[in-house]
Formats: sequence, structure tokens, C-alpha cells
Amino acid sequence: MSKIPVIEIFGPTIQGEGSVIGVKTMFVRTYGCDYRCAWCDSAFTWDGSAKDQVRMLEASEIVSELAALAAGNFEWVTISGGNPALIGQPIQELADQLHQLGIKVAVETQGSKWQDWFRSVDVLTLSPKPPSSRMHTDWSVLDRIIEQMPSGTSNLKVVVFDDEDYRYAKTVHRRYPDIPFFLQAGNSDVQEEGNISDRLLKKLNWLMDKVIADPDMNDARTLPQLHALVWHNKRGK
Amino acid sequence: MSKIPVIEIFGPTIQGEGSVIGVKTMFVRTYGCDYRCAWCDSAFTWDGSAKDQVRMLEASEIVSELAALAAGNFEWVTISGGNPALIGQPIQELADQLHQLGIKVAVETQGSKWQDWFRSVDVLTLSPKPPSSRMHTDWSVLDRIIEQMPSGTSNLKVVVFDDEDYRYAKTVHRRYPDIPFFLQAGNSDVQEEGNISDRLLKKLNWLMDKVIADPDMNDARTLPQLHALVWHNKRGK
Repeated sequence: MSKIPVIEIFGPTIQGEGSVIGVKTMFVRTYGCDYRCAWCDSAFTWDGSAKDQVRMLEASEIVSELAALAAGNFEWVTISGGNPALIGQPIQELADQLHQLGIKVAVETQGSKWQDWFRSVDVLTLSPKPPSSRMHTDWSVLDRIIEQMPSGTSNLKVVVFDDEDYRYAKTVHRRYPDIPFFLQAGNSDVQEEGNISDRLLKKLNWLMDKVIADPDMNDARTLPQLHALVWHNKRGK
Repeated sequence: MSKIPVIEIFGPTIQGEGSVIGVKTMFVRTYGCDYRCAWCDSAFTWDGSAKDQVRMLEASEIVSELAALAAGNFEWVTISGGNPALIGQPIQELADQLHQLGIKVAVETQGSKWQDWFRSVDVLTLSPKPPSSRMHTDWSVLDRIIEQMPSGTSNLKVVVFDDEDYRYAKTVHRRYPDIPFFLQAGNSDVQEEGNISDRLLKKLNWLMDKVIADPDMNDARTLPQLHALVWHNKRGK
């Protein structure tokens, strides 16, 4: 495959979560996922509901589209999905072309599959999915990814909805104690319309209280999804 | 002076703002400030209203108190004020003692005064105050601080309430382009009781929209105060 299945290109917006929370970024969202998380906030990337919006694009076409949207008004591009790790060489080309323009590349993936191009990105966020997702973590694959990443380029992020998820998060943090670790309060209803910030902040408060009481989380970082707090469940923000 | 004027020691809690947003930390708040910011959220550190709560403590007494509160349950201590830069050698001793215990030290100051102990802290957040504070920035002092700090240890944070503050923030970012730069949406009423998160998120949205439209802010990071979103105007959180 020499093209990338793209379902969304948008921005600039503000990265709402994880290790580069708050930074201005463009988003490129790839289509297709090997997971079916129960609470996925981007199910349109795999459930077929938006299949007619998918375009097969070469790296250079994506770069052109980003430039047409906002040339000169961004320094970061975030590649998310779906799972962008389902795609091989074309993303290497995309990262290379962006780097040639002085643009930094962040990628988000669940860590279920290795790609050689991981080693070229500036920030690789690995977000293995907790039990509430109903997905299963392949630890040997995750081990291999973390071992192969250049020092200082990867971070782990676990979304937490309940106590069982929290225990899973501790397992992840204990397994990879040297990788920067982020806890994220989950959004339990990604369909709800209107203002959901009070609900999200209540969940964040619950998670913070657990972390505050837990000596195993002394170097974890607990964060919300800023975009969901500010823009709620709107797509393309 | 061989003692530190302390008005609060509390935690663990979650760092709500800036470059280490989300991390679990203890707080040590020093008494006294050379500034009188119009919207200060800790005016009790200088307005005399809580003067009877000030204690003169040696570094070792502070370390003991932190341990009594939460030994084993924190890896970060944040020293804030007031302006901790009004205090000299005793804070060097505090930082040294904490480091000997494997604890990291973050400091927040407006950058109006240099102290040699700045070079010993893990994270120095410099938050020069915008026009809405009615304070005046001494650029030569700030220049000197930034020049003297070890590479990678300092960051800049500007609180923004209005357009004039935003222009000031741009001046700061342009003057120190290589220092990580954080924009923070201001809390315009630090006395308001009850749930203030909608008001704060509206201001954050306003600030994000400005950043999104502004090519001068491509590598800035725009953040809220998480503690104010979750715990509102409560003190000691």
C-alpha cells in the first residue's frame, strides 16, 4: 500500500491530552483499527458509519492539504486514528516530508503493532487499553515497541473509567517504570450532546483522589481531555 | 536569615498548571511578596490577612513536616509563594535536603529577583506578570535569570486575562524563543464561591481561539488551572 486511508485532516487546534497537552497542532486521522473499544471516541474510524468519507492519499497530498489549511500556522502534526500503526511505509514518507519542513510529528497508537517509522516520530504516545474497553493487551508486542523506541521519545497513557481500569494502569506503570506515564480520566458517554464538562471534571476529581492516595503513582501525571472540557463531544476539534 | 517564613505546607495534591501539570506534589508556600497583583489568587501570602499563620521554619523542620504529612507518598515538592525568591540560603538547604531524599523540587516565581539556589531546582517556572496585574516587569532581571539557568530547567508562564495581556505574552515569548512557553487562562474572580468551571473554561476557549489563529504561538502551550476547574477557589488544594 503506497497510500494512506485518511478520514479527517483538520486544525489547527489545541492538543487536549497527554504529554504535549496544550500545544497547537494539526490532526491527521487515519481510517481503520484493529481494536473495537467499548467507549471509543472515534468509532467512525472503524465502524463503517463514515466509510464514504475515507480518502486514499499519498504523503505529499496530505502535506499539501495541511499547508492549504494553515501554512505557517503550525509546528506540530498529530497522526491519530483509528490505529495509524496499521499503515507502513507511507507514514514514514509523511513524517519525513513534515520533518523537512521543520514540523514535528506526534503519533497516538494503542501499541498493538510495531512499525519501523515509530523511530522517526518526535512523540509516540502508547495508550494500551484498560479492561473497560473489552480489548486485550498483547504485552510482548508492547514490550518490543518500548524496547525499540529511542530514549525520550515514547510515553504511556492509560484512560481510566473505573477501579479495574486503575489497577490495569498500575500494572502498566509498574511494567515500564522509566517511561513517562499519564493517566487520563475517561469520557463515559461520547454521544452526549451539550455541556459535559461537569461530568468530566467529576471523573477527573475521582481519579485525582485515587492518585493522591496511592504511593505507586508518585511520578504519574493525571490529566483531563481539554478538548472535551472546552468543546465537548464535537468532532473535528 | 536562616529560617523560611512559611504560610502553608500541604499535599499531596495534583499540580494544576504549567510545565508539570498533572503531577502529584506537595506544596510549600512562603510568605511575602514584592508584587501586589490585582488578581493574585494567593493574596493571603502578602496582604496581612493571614499573618498570624506564618511560621519561621528551618529547612529541616519543613522536611520533617512534609514527611509527617505524607512520607513515601510524593516525589515532588513545589515551592511557591508569595515570591520564594525573596528568600536566600535557607531554600538552598531545603532543596538540598529534599534532593538527598530523592525528591524533585519545582519553584514558581515571577522572575523579579535572582537567587543562586535557582540553579539547584529541577523545574523553575518564571511567570512574569502581564499588564492586568498592574505590576511592572524588570526585563534586565528576567534576562539575567534566564541566562544563568542551566539548560532545560526553566520555563515561562504568562497568565492572560485580556487582549493587552496577550500582547504582553507575545513580547515575552519573542524575547525568549528557546524557553518552553506556557499560556494560562486567568481566573478573574478568585473570591467567587461555588462552581466556577464554566467561567474558567469559557476563558480557556477564548485564549485557545487566539492561539489557534496566531502564527506567533505555534510552539506555545495553552493550559487551564486544573485545580481551579476541579476544586474551584478552595485554598489548600
